[in-house]
Amino acid sequence: MSNTELEALRERVDEINLQILKLINERGKLVQEIGKAKEAQGVNRYDPVRERKMLDLIKEHNNGPFEDSTLQHIFKEIFKAALELQEDDHRKALLV
Amino acid sequence: MSNTELEALRERVDEINLQILKLINERGKLVQEIGKAKEAQGVNRYDPVRERKMLDLIKEHNNGPFEDSTLQHIFKEIFKAALELQEDDHRKALLV
Repeated sequence: MSNTELEALRERVDEINLQILKLINERGKLVQEIGKAKEAQGVNRYDPVRERKMLDLIKEHNNGPFEDSTLQHIFKEIFKAALELQEDDHRKALLV
Repeated sequence: MSNTELEALRERVDEINLQILKLINERGKLVQEIGKAKEAQGVNRYDPVRERKMLDLIKEHNNGPFEDSTLQHIFKEIFKAALELQEDDHRKALLV
């Protein structure tokens, strides 16, 4: 493989990184909306049953090369970050 | 917000999860190709300069709601998983 080909692969990786970034942030905004709705209903934001369902769906659609366990680990980090975002919103709401 | 609206938001989150899954796996395949090329060139697979460049580009394009530090943490997990994938390929190559 030439350096030009290697460079092309790296550019593709950068594009994918930015697409993932966009989706994670879009997901963050949706989860903020969900958090507000649950807050209004007085429901707890953390929902382990819903988290399990999301992970099962991911596992079901996984065609590799990553193992289910690796993807589960990455997605749990994404879920945790979103939960922290909801908690920040909750704290801000309390301070108003 | 009605339960139907909440359900619609959740469905959207599930769609985004599956899009992220697809991109992470696509990224994994590209990184495997890059790993093979670097292996052929006798270059080390882990490249902290390249990793820093990827993180800088992500930071540059981040429009929130997530903080740069949160995204950096998530992406480092994605990078780590890809590196482990390359290492598995390397071990398999040695066993052939």
